[in-house]
Amino acid sequence: MKTGVFVAGVGMTPFGKYPQRTQEDLGREAVLQALDESGIDRSQIQEAFCGSSYGGPLLGQRILRQLGMTGIPITNVENACSSGGSAIREAVTAIAAERCEIALVVGVEQLSRFGGGTIPLEGSDHEVQQGMTMPALYAMRAQRYMAEHDAQPRDLALVSVKARENASLNPYAQSRRLISVENVLESRMIADPLTLYMCCPTGDGAAAAVLTSRKRSKSDPARIRIDASVLRSGEYTTGARDMARSDLTERTAAAAYTQAGIGPEDVDVAEVHDAFAISELMYCEALGFCSTGLARDLVGSGETKITGRIPVNPSGGLLAKGHPVGATGVAQLCEAVWQLRGQAGPRQVASPRVALTHCTGGGISGLDHGACTVHVVSR
Amino acid sequence: MKTGVFVAGVGMTPFGKYPQRTQEDLGREAVLQALDESGIDRSQIQEAFCGSSYGGPLLGQRILRQLGMTGIPITNVENACSSGGSAIREAVTAIAAERCEIALVVGVEQLSRFGGGTIPLEGSDHEVQQGMTMPALYAMRAQRYMAEHDAQPRDLALVSVKARENASLNPYAQSRRLISVENVLESRMIADPLTLYMCCPTGDGAAAAVLTSRKRSKSDPARIRIDASVLRSGEYTTGARDMARSDLTERTAAAAYTQAGIGPEDVDVAEVHDAFAISELMYCEALGFCSTGLARDLVGSGETKITGRIPVNPSGGLLAKGHPVGATGVAQLCEAVWQLRGQAGPRQVASPRVALTHCTGGGISGLDHGACTVHVVSR
Repeated sequence: MKTGVFVAGVGMTPFGKYPQRTQEDLGREAVLQALDESGIDRSQIQEAFCGSSYGGPLLGQRILRQLGMTGIPITNVENACSSGGSAIREAVTAIAAERCEIALVVGVEQLSRFGGGTIPLEGSDHEVQQGMTMPALYAMRAQRYMAEHDAQPRDLALVSVKARENASLNPYAQSRRLISVENVLESRMIADPLTLYMCCPTGDGAAAAVLTSRKRSKSDPARIRIDASVLRSGEYTTGARDMARSDLTERTAAAAYTQAGIGPEDVDVAEVHDAFAISELMYCEALGFCSTGLARDLVGSGETKITGRIPVNPSGGLLAKGHPVGATGVAQLCEAVWQLRGQAGPRQVASPRVALTHCTGGGISGLDHGACTVHVVSR
Repeated sequence: MKTGVFVAGVGMTPFGKYPQRTQEDLGREAVLQALDESGIDRSQIQEAFCGSSYGGPLLGQRILRQLGMTGIPITNVENACSSGGSAIREAVTAIAAERCEIALVVGVEQLSRFGGGTIPLEGSDHEVQQGMTMPALYAMRAQRYMAEHDAQPRDLALVSVKARENASLNPYAQSRRLISVENVLESRMIADPLTLYMCCPTGDGAAAAVLTSRKRSKSDPARIRIDASVLRSGEYTTGARDMARSDLTERTAAAAYTQAGIGPEDVDVAEVHDAFAISELMYCEALGFCSTGLARDLVGSGETKITGRIPVNPSGGLLAKGHPVGATGVAQLCEAVWQLRGQAGPRQVASPRVALTHCTGGGISGLDHGACTVHVVSR
């Protein structure tokens, strides 16, 4: 299906650590900004979706009650790191099915409630019980990647340096201080070879978007179209899976490119799920921005910088903008929209026409990941 | 929109307390039964939705991995007591939008993991902090209802007695022992006037359904059509709200009747959210099965019995079949399908053509409830 869905407005909180705020408060701030940007009154929202992984029962209802947005259908969506992306997809589908014409999506997470460290994973999973937390999983992927493709920790560090460079230009980013390759390599070891600065911070934040059907947005000169909205889960494999390669992202991206009728060469700017420095290398390859094993060169040559051939994570990405889980997918859409509209200020990519956003996550034994979303948006 | 969606097969576990089992195991049992009944091979399922309120991250993925059903889009839906109903609605919408042709829905909950007592509610809600748990909320509604409509605890007890009568005929029900009005009135007081037997038990279980688009099910002689799938949230009101009346269920039902093109008089059998005995009285009125204040007579006259004019909860309902939160909405669909197909055995209602299912829940300050779903299905 073609989606026939447009983005009328987006908004987000700055990402950071806000233990003194509530999830409802964070969500409200993002929703108000998205509504304001869309020029659509809150009373016109016909349906809402809330993406969160740890938000607790009825988070969407709790946020929208504070805004007087009650009575409408509200659905809470959980899909680990792809919760926000999955919530967008449900909203896109609701509009495509003509269930509504204007839908609100809000993604929220407040990880500071858990005190810090890696995010709580499902304790019943036997790999998690054995210590396979996200940093451990990506450390193994990094080791495998470095062994297969003759990469060095320095190649990983370059990803983190670029992320901070971009984040320093983004008022919504959590980690805005510039760092050097040496800073990255000398920072505390988390899971060999991943040092502290190669891991995204835990944090809090919210992001929101107002989506509309075609006929509602024709009058909007800067309208942004959603060309693809795809979700997939990992495929079970035993033993032979190549940890340095993401078949899940490859499959999800392939479906998104087909839906949008484009190829990776058509993407002008991308927000990619760089939860760890190695992630950006792996996923740039899986998304088709370069061949397998060559992402190191892609990053090293500066091609993924804001001024490069295929700018990746101009927002700072998860590594530096931050990663409040449920908010991330929606925040990626915010950045894509701002870039396409030419509203990204000092981090603006030159005249992008097509943007791609990518989330993947949820560690489950035997699977690449539990959920991956890819969206393609264009102007 | 008309949904154009059919139910190819349903399945559920017996409801009960299974602290020694896992959520994944419960879900798997229900899915296998639904697949078996549908005659559709698991490899044909194109998308899946999992409804659960307390299941934890990626429960749907964790269940389906065990069945080798990986790779497809899987979305986890949370909407408190309407989680299962909301998951059905997302599947219906995905098919209506032509995002897929065959979708699986599974609802799961394992409340025994929490040790017993009332279910954990969102602790940040200020009414919950003041003690407004579900039994307390419905006790206040019962008091108000009795005062307004000159009802007695005996009228409430009759609901519980009927629930057990029906459950005694249902191998999937959690509380199958027959009880008398005296047993109900003499059981332990939970929240005046609600005694133990006027409250649904906590428990565990799962239910599943395979939904298909029209063209896939034309060859199925006993095909069941989903005529309406509606979700609404409560409207914020201050002060003047009548606690003995559910405006949320009234609004949701009105939308469902409109979508299905029927009225309450056309409903031949209903599964209603009787979490407490008073709920069935309130919601029978809100669903239009009788006028306000007359549900007492409806129940007292036997009209809601399996042999009555409008059989309500032939399965035993939440009061006796049980209420594993996320499973309930899907289990209601199971009962509706079995009744419509004439497969309900000793609890079979005479030749029903139209069935209605209703879930509502999620206590939020100032709202009736956070989420209510109503489905209309027919043969």
